[in-house]
Amino acid sequence: MLLNRARLLASPAANTVFTTVLTRGPVVRPEIARITGLSSAAVTKAVKPMIESGYLEELPQGPRTIEGAGRPARPLAVRADREFFVGVKVTADELIGVVTDLRAQVVRAAHRIPVIDRSVEQVVRDIAVLVAELTPAHAERTHHIGVSVSGDVDRPGGVVRYSPFLGWHDVPLAELVGEATGLAVTVENDVKALTVAEQWFGEGVGADSFALATVGVGIGCALVVNGRLVTGGYGVAGEIGHIPVASGDGPDCHCGARGCVEAIASEEAIVTRARRAAGDPELDMAGAIDRAHGGDAAVRAVFDEAGKAIGLGLAAMVNLVGPERVVVSGEGVAAYDLFEEQIRAAFTTQAFGAAARCPLVVRPLPWEEWARGAAAVSIQSLFAA
Amino acid sequence: MLLNRARLLASPAANTVFTTVLTRGPVVRPEIARITGLSSAAVTKAVKPMIESGYLEELPQGPRTIEGAGRPARPLAVRADREFFVGVKVTADELIGVVTDLRAQVVRAAHRIPVIDRSVEQVVRDIAVLVAELTPAHAERTHHIGVSVSGDVDRPGGVVRYSPFLGWHDVPLAELVGEATGLAVTVENDVKALTVAEQWFGEGVGADSFALATVGVGIGCALVVNGRLVTGGYGVAGEIGHIPVASGDGPDCHCGARGCVEAIASEEAIVTRARRAAGDPELDMAGAIDRAHGGDAAVRAVFDEAGKAIGLGLAAMVNLVGPERVVVSGEGVAAYDLFEEQIRAAFTTQAFGAAARCPLVVRPLPWEEWARGAAAVSIQSLFAA
Repeated sequence: MLLNRARLLASPAANTVFTTVLTRGPVVRPEIARITGLSSAAVTKAVKPMIESGYLEELPQGPRTIEGAGRPARPLAVRADREFFVGVKVTADELIGVVTDLRAQVVRAAHRIPVIDRSVEQVVRDIAVLVAELTPAHAERTHHIGVSVSGDVDRPGGVVRYSPFLGWHDVPLAELVGEATGLAVTVENDVKALTVAEQWFGEGVGADSFALATVGVGIGCALVVNGRLVTGGYGVAGEIGHIPVASGDGPDCHCGARGCVEAIASEEAIVTRARRAAGDPELDMAGAIDRAHGGDAAVRAVFDEAGKAIGLGLAAMVNLVGPERVVVSGEGVAAYDLFEEQIRAAFTTQAFGAAARCPLVVRPLPWEEWARGAAAVSIQSLFAA
Repeated sequence: MLLNRARLLASPAANTVFTTVLTRGPVVRPEIARITGLSSAAVTKAVKPMIESGYLEELPQGPRTIEGAGRPARPLAVRADREFFVGVKVTADELIGVVTDLRAQVVRAAHRIPVIDRSVEQVVRDIAVLVAELTPAHAERTHHIGVSVSGDVDRPGGVVRYSPFLGWHDVPLAELVGEATGLAVTVENDVKALTVAEQWFGEGVGADSFALATVGVGIGCALVVNGRLVTGGYGVAGEIGHIPVASGDGPDCHCGARGCVEAIASEEAIVTRARRAAGDPELDMAGAIDRAHGGDAAVRAVFDEAGKAIGLGLAAMVNLVGPERVVVSGEGVAAYDLFEEQIRAAFTTQAFGAAARCPLVVRPLPWEEWARGAAAVSIQSLFAA
């Protein structure tokens, strides 16, 4: 099965054709040729074995037509139930798992397991438990799992290089989860995984470039530029949290620099500053939000500053890479009303010329969506080179 | 001729094959297939008319081989003298023109015409004079010209939307130069044009991502990400000069924001601040450089601050897009010794984790290289969609 699939999708042309049907289908062959730049003959050749092996199917009639086409073409679609995928998002507090079909539609809604013990061994065991709970109905057609973790993840190597919130360093997570579950494992940074799902099935469909920024414990960002996720020549990209928006007079950042967005707008930074503003060393994030909503001007100012830093960071990113749109999400969007005015004001001031036209779309993405993102990267690995 | 060429290169596959031979050749067909992901049949089909029309030629024997290939393959190369291209860089003070062959090699070294009158009409007339001086030896095989201008350029529309140093707004430059010279015209932002030349024939060859930053009158940057120039969803990208590195306590910027890199490190910003530091309202850039070199600590501090702002901007860019390398150039590199220490110190402090490994390569690029960049974009237009 695996060999067969690998052979099916081994050529870049086959890979491109499959992705096109997956993300744009149902779609007729001439349109695939137009989108991909492949010849009609190449498309036909790539499609044939995919139909034979059940990954693609021909639909009876075409919902889309190409002008000037001679005979009505039969559109191709992915057979979504050909194979199923597990996606697991690992947070510091819980594991969230889903099962999706080949089109990343959730077919088995989120199961959750609390993380009591953050040791690698225990988390791997818990992932195996979660998989066992999730997959019985689809076990025979489930061969892949995606696991997403915040931090620095080496996807090709299958290694979590560093995850601050889990306290992990250089963990060969793909290998460990593979041994524990018998599935082929892809590990990816959680924001990048979410971005793959958005690129294929969400806000990013049809966009040559877009950005997904997350506001919460940290300030993260993943970028799609020229149609592909930006991974960084040295594995670092999208670090919007470490743009120095106040290098002169801003606070020190945990990264060693000064005035970074994250030094002003991360949850820890907000809580630290709100405690000082309120004179209450026990204040937590929920308490800070309550005070700001209750009219505490000093705490409110902390959120204003955080919003300004985020807005400046977003503008710097938009000035540099020019995405068609920016999705803002993350745990922090629950308190977005406290940030929004300053985010938008700072963004508008700092965005250069026509870049100010780039829309900021705020969208809460529940944890299940993040787990779905993890499943999406395992779908992507189906036909990775 | 033009029709024939347009037909030759009309398909994206042909386009890809031609670019591959242009930038990576001499190269055998199986390697083209490997690089492009096209089938051997598709490569062979695309190549045939290009050989017949003289754009490509087969070399007698292969300098490169593919492991496991059956018979020795004959490498393909672009016939560099098949066609010639004029490149003109327009600055506020002069026009610099070159003629290149199809591989962007300069075959006719720079001619210059001083710009006395910056009116559009006069500059267009001067470009025509420059073309007449440059092309006689190659006139019959010269059909394209590239013109590069600093500022906001709409390349597809052929319009200079805004060029501050020329004082131009919405100038249909491609149309005007076409009428004056009879050549097919491509206009492009000067830094982007230089980046195309670097991507194909310079530091960028083989890099999936790189950045070219220019220090001088302004602070510019062009980015190649995922193998292609980043153009920006709204036409704005690479605006490293408008990263707010000192939003809290930095000076106002001409863009309306505060603490931008350009507000601290543009030539105008440096001169303004150096005048204040030296107490000499007549000081110019050369004078400021002299004073700094001569040991004037206050003026030297102005360059230090500028260097720091540039280093922070470069780090923010590297943290976001993760280029494999950064080329730093521009008129300002003549005074690079005054910036360098602070650029590197700020970059090292601000670059996030492994991003600090990204090399900053300082490379003076004479005006002729910029004119060559303009020629490179006209070569690119040969087979633009």
